[in-house]
Amino acid sequence: MREVALDGHSRRPIRKFAGTLPLMDYAGRLESLQKDVLRLKVDTLFITHPPNIRYLCGFTGSAGALLVSASATVFFSDGRYARQAKEEVKGAKIIIAPKAPLVSVGEWLSRGGRRLRPRSLGIESEHLTVAARKRLAALIPKGVRLREVPPVVEQARMVKDSNELEKIREAVSVGAGLFDRALVTIRPGVNELEVAAEMEYSARKAGVEGMSFETIVAAGVRSSLPHGRASAARIPARGFVVCDFGVILHGYCSDRTRTVWVGAASKEVSRLYAAVLEAQLAAIDSVRPGVPVSKVDHAARKTLQTHGLERHFTHSTGHGVGLEIHEAPRVAKGQQEILRPGMVITVEPGVYLPDKWGVRIEDMVVVTEHGCEVLAPHQKEFIAL
Amino acid sequence: MREVALDGHSRRPIRKFAGTLPLMDYAGRLESLQKDVLRLKVDTLFITHPPNIRYLCGFTGSAGALLVSASATVFFSDGRYARQAKEEVKGAKIIIAPKAPLVSVGEWLSRGGRRLRPRSLGIESEHLTVAARKRLAALIPKGVRLREVPPVVEQARMVKDSNELEKIREAVSVGAGLFDRALVTIRPGVNELEVAAEMEYSARKAGVEGMSFETIVAAGVRSSLPHGRASAARIPARGFVVCDFGVILHGYCSDRTRTVWVGAASKEVSRLYAAVLEAQLAAIDSVRPGVPVSKVDHAARKTLQTHGLERHFTHSTGHGVGLEIHEAPRVAKGQQEILRPGMVITVEPGVYLPDKWGVRIEDMVVVTEHGCEVLAPHQKEFIAL
Repeated sequence: MREVALDGHSRRPIRKFAGTLPLMDYAGRLESLQKDVLRLKVDTLFITHPPNIRYLCGFTGSAGALLVSASATVFFSDGRYARQAKEEVKGAKIIIAPKAPLVSVGEWLSRGGRRLRPRSLGIESEHLTVAARKRLAALIPKGVRLREVPPVVEQARMVKDSNELEKIREAVSVGAGLFDRALVTIRPGVNELEVAAEMEYSARKAGVEGMSFETIVAAGVRSSLPHGRASAARIPARGFVVCDFGVILHGYCSDRTRTVWVGAASKEVSRLYAAVLEAQLAAIDSVRPGVPVSKVDHAARKTLQTHGLERHFTHSTGHGVGLEIHEAPRVAKGQQEILRPGMVITVEPGVYLPDKWGVRIEDMVVVTEHGCEVLAPHQKEFIAL
Repeated sequence: MREVALDGHSRRPIRKFAGTLPLMDYAGRLESLQKDVLRLKVDTLFITHPPNIRYLCGFTGSAGALLVSASATVFFSDGRYARQAKEEVKGAKIIIAPKAPLVSVGEWLSRGGRRLRPRSLGIESEHLTVAARKRLAALIPKGVRLREVPPVVEQARMVKDSNELEKIREAVSVGAGLFDRALVTIRPGVNELEVAAEMEYSARKAGVEGMSFETIVAAGVRSSLPHGRASAARIPARGFVVCDFGVILHGYCSDRTRTVWVGAASKEVSRLYAAVLEAQLAAIDSVRPGVPVSKVDHAARKTLQTHGLERHFTHSTGHGVGLEIHEAPRVAKGQQEILRPGMVITVEPGVYLPDKWGVRIEDMVVVTEHGCEVLAPHQKEFIAL
């Protein structure tokens, strides 16, 4: 049985983002970063966070490091990745050394570092561990200073170029399809893991590189846990089932949540669902360039407040998505990041009634020149299976 | 067609480890760590690495922090995990605060930290980032010193107790079963992702929490890449297919590699396979208490040397497995960790002939009182499909 309580489509026409975002190649990204290097008062950046390395030079392996100065870019990896580095890395000189990349960088710099000879090395303090920093400090030449720099690559990654948007669209489109599989699998007595299995199987069959996070299928009372990943618990005869799922395709992540009701639905239940959907649509309506992300969070919270549900919305409204499933900006109270065209964020308010059940509805949206585009905004009507 | 070239079973009788490892509960683990605290010359440990937190108190969520002093243990998490913390955390006082756990810890300590009032806080320098350390330092009271301490929890985790071994056995048993699925899926023209899809689907159907790492299915020339995770590449009419795969069950990881040949096999091909298997069995034969891990690595390398293949073995021989897919000890050249009963390591030599193909064979082994037990040592004969 399907009961349409509220139509998520009608309030927002589906419209492709026809903006004029530039196609940034790796050379362009590096060039833009090289301008930042000067502004940061260091002469060389030491990039160790794998998604940042991938963004800047295309390397998809797990062991790599990148030195970026105003004039040169050098990539380091180990023997396992020799062939892959040669195939993937663009715009950087490649050095393959037998040791871990951090050690290779330190030793290379201590041997003179060719033209680079930095006097100050900017480190990614949100990623580099205390121990790695210490190891690096012990290896580099005496005169070189380590300086913590702001997350400039993450900041650049917030705004997606047209090439990235195309990949994200594709990931969302494939990811959205998994819910069809969930809909034919969910029924009382089936366990959550089986639902996840069917969804993930169809994802793999569609050619994804992997899931972007552990698939959440949380049924009945478990739907009241915001992070209830799929378990052996069985779907009860009556209750909500929250499905939060995403795929990685061509390196880019999708993230989506749909919640369905199993069994005969009371008014109370469909009203709860409608309140969350209303909050989600209100938050989406607030997404446009120039708006601070905290306003998007506030829009969801304010709507839930009118239903007396605000205190059961126990997490933030969303986050950026791209090469990582969680990336900047955080869409939360107190966050002042200003939305700009090309940003991609999730909008995912949820209400969790302790020991009872929960509802969450999530879409990814792209900030456009005058508002936003919801990616694959379908299947948001109240569904009672 | 299956051709048996070498029987991996015959050289090592299958025998369950009947040792007398103690069953360690969370209380026991915490007690043992509390003894370490005194030895480390700090009065309180600040644990942030999620597997370490899980090991010590049972919490399986992603946002948590643990303070351990000689007399008290306090666990911190945020509102999303209130219910889960209550259900899971053993042996620690639970504090649920609205902010990120690190901030909650800092603020709690600055408010007096009840009985704890530490003067020195031991931090996990291999996990804590430079930025997190800075945030923490700014929050804690003036007189409290941050000290980097050795990875004591990881060291404790190396030796598994009987409860952990039981879970690992179960994970390995389920994980091993995936290869049966691979064997009926692998055939020329099928793409690697489809093989991975079938393996992962059967894993999910068996009730696993997830895969312990991205499934590797590397066919033909891609088998010469040690880290060729499953791609859209098709299995050629003739070539090796390396399958490296693992599951997570009850929190514990499995890790296993099997390599099969597709097509008519030449002598050259079956000899290559036999050499890798010989190296793997030699390395396994060297595993016993009192032996440094470097010797296990050396045993594999020496065997490959007799076949002139050593230079194509481009990675280390193995690693510890438990709550994490890669944990201490590293089984590599120069590593001096001494094997002790209860340790669980992989033994996985591989040979990669550039632009041609590769072979890797991997098992997990438990160090016993007098040698070792190979977990699920079957399906190591040369298989030509």
